[in-house]
Amino acid sequence: MLNFTVGPVMSSERIRNIGSEQVPYFRTSEFSEIMLENEQFILKYSKAPLGSKAVFMTCSSTGSMEAVVMNCFCEHDKVLVIDGGSFGHRFVELCRIHNIPHIALKLDHGKKLTRERLYEYDGQGFTGLLVNVDETSTAVLYDTMMIGEFCKKNNLFYVCDCVSAFLADPFNMDECGADIMITGSQKVLACPPGISIIVFSPKGLEKVEQSNVKTMYFDLKEALKNQERGQTPFTPAVGILIQINERLKEIEKQGGVDSEVERIAGQAKDFRKRIEKLPFELVSESPANAVTSVHPTTAIAYDIFLKLKDEYDIWVCPNGGDMKNSIFRVGHIGAITHEDNKTLVDALIDLQKRGII
Amino acid sequence: MLNFTVGPVMSSERIRNIGSEQVPYFRTSEFSEIMLENEQFILKYSKAPLGSKAVFMTCSSTGSMEAVVMNCFCEHDKVLVIDGGSFGHRFVELCRIHNIPHIALKLDHGKKLTRERLYEYDGQGFTGLLVNVDETSTAVLYDTMMIGEFCKKNNLFYVCDCVSAFLADPFNMDECGADIMITGSQKVLACPPGISIIVFSPKGLEKVEQSNVKTMYFDLKEALKNQERGQTPFTPAVGILIQINERLKEIEKQGGVDSEVERIAGQAKDFRKRIEKLPFELVSESPANAVTSVHPTTAIAYDIFLKLKDEYDIWVCPNGGDMKNSIFRVGHIGAITHEDNKTLVDALIDLQKRGII
Repeated sequence: MLNFTVGPVMSSERIRNIGSEQVPYFRTSEFSEIMLENEQFILKYSKAPLGSKAVFMTCSSTGSMEAVVMNCFCEHDKVLVIDGGSFGHRFVELCRIHNIPHIALKLDHGKKLTRERLYEYDGQGFTGLLVNVDETSTAVLYDTMMIGEFCKKNNLFYVCDCVSAFLADPFNMDECGADIMITGSQKVLACPPGISIIVFSPKGLEKVEQSNVKTMYFDLKEALKNQERGQTPFTPAVGILIQINERLKEIEKQGGVDSEVERIAGQAKDFRKRIEKLPFELVSESPANAVTSVHPTTAIAYDIFLKLKDEYDIWVCPNGGDMKNSIFRVGHIGAITHEDNKTLVDALIDLQKRGII
Repeated sequence: MLNFTVGPVMSSERIRNIGSEQVPYFRTSEFSEIMLENEQFILKYSKAPLGSKAVFMTCSSTGSMEAVVMNCFCEHDKVLVIDGGSFGHRFVELCRIHNIPHIALKLDHGKKLTRERLYEYDGQGFTGLLVNVDETSTAVLYDTMMIGEFCKKNNLFYVCDCVSAFLADPFNMDECGADIMITGSQKVLACPPGISIIVFSPKGLEKVEQSNVKTMYFDLKEALKNQERGQTPFTPAVGILIQINERLKEIEKQGGVDSEVERIAGQAKDFRKRIEKLPFELVSESPANAVTSVHPTTAIAYDIFLKLKDEYDIWVCPNGGDMKNSIFRVGHIGAITHEDNKTLVDALIDLQKRGII
């Protein structure tokens, strides 16, 4: 099975082999060292400012999105949410659930966020901004530098959910001025799902320190306090954290974050070139590197997903909700190569020959 | 490394091998089938009444404890919490955080819950009861049938956290009348940590249905709705769920839940017999099968943990907080044998010969 979804993605043999080892007991100095090393790598790769910290949460990235919304905002805030797809909309829902005053800046699927649209909200008393840097449902990449400038001008607490953008698109937490960065184990980190990661700038740390949030599992103050000694408040997904450690070192050996971003950009470019002659429209005005969102003009998107899975042993990533029939996605993250792209495109060409697309 | 902690525990080779396979994409009918099969096995093994359901949460068991407290109780409740150690106390903390009126029935470490102590709270307007069936910090097993009778008499919503008791001690959800059962992937299920499981009786389901809880990640109504088709609202720890599936089938092949309970009881009995002549006191008045809590009378408990780890390549389970120096624990769950018990006890005897204990 060849996996082009956007998570879980293919893992390297090295990472998979760790999955077959016994999972160690974790309240030990040995495991603490691994956790502290993981934190240092994540801070380095997110280009976080001096004094930043990171924690590792055992939950999906939605759990971390919720933890951040709960710990960093309250009923006295006024938050601008970039709502361009399923994941942006999830932030809107989280604000609604937690009674945080918010406005959704709605974008049609596939549309990029322009300076004009953003500055409609300039000087209007907002206190924070939430954005999924790669709106993974449509593969739209937002401009973190432009948004950062807006946040700086308006003095907004700036949350970048980089779940599928981290290590796939250039991101400089320090330069763009983000206060929080979120990612997950099953995207470019190419480990099994189960861990998500939150990075805090010094301003992010200060915000969490002041919070009186009513939660045990998502109490980020406790998570930070435990991470100081390389631990977690509760039993974490220990095995995945060890795989993440190996993967972070693998990225380092292969040239670090910029090389990894370049590799994935190359994987995306190669795929997009190969499908030029197929009856597909690219959905995103501002394509992210991690994933290509494709609108097939001659077939139902979900049918293509099923055909590829059942007849070619290839997974692409279906969309949900009202995008189910119009869009499917092809990921460029994980242990896949240009040769794998060829295998997928050959299958698509075969579907075309068979009159299915 | 030989692991006698209470989680993560040793996994069988079969389960570990799955850890080296690629983690599949999960929004598929194939994965749904696995999830539905997992649910059926869990309902069977917890001896849940007809009409019960189960969900699989990607979080530690504390996450599920919090989800249950949030979804099943509110400020109009009055909850009795059996507080005999660290985990009982966690339920007390959860009630405090979520503004749920509660009384802690405090027991000294190692003490069992007697009928007399329990019935001090009879007829006092309680609406619910929270108990960690095996208070894992001290290895005290509570009597779920006796508590169930009390809950029935007082019409209490009855929550059994069976994290380390499930599949280790006899538990019959139907007969004891529990409304909720909680467990985790890294205890007798002997898979890596990252998944916890909640079982709901029909009354438990009804309670969740009526809840207006303010949470996305811990919204059990959504989890139940998704599990109907074998799915989860957010990306779960897919790899661990597949390992759980294999493990549940493994237990079935080996004779089912009663055989597994018997196997672990045998493992505990064998260990306790072997240490009879060592300078140890057993802490628990009502020993659980999953773990033995040991008070060394001639040495510091935490030092024994460190010596065994660093000089014998054996992990036992240290205690935390005020039990750190007085108690260590030895687990009887996971892929360990009587022969492994011998190896551990030989190491302890060697420590004794060396004058360390």
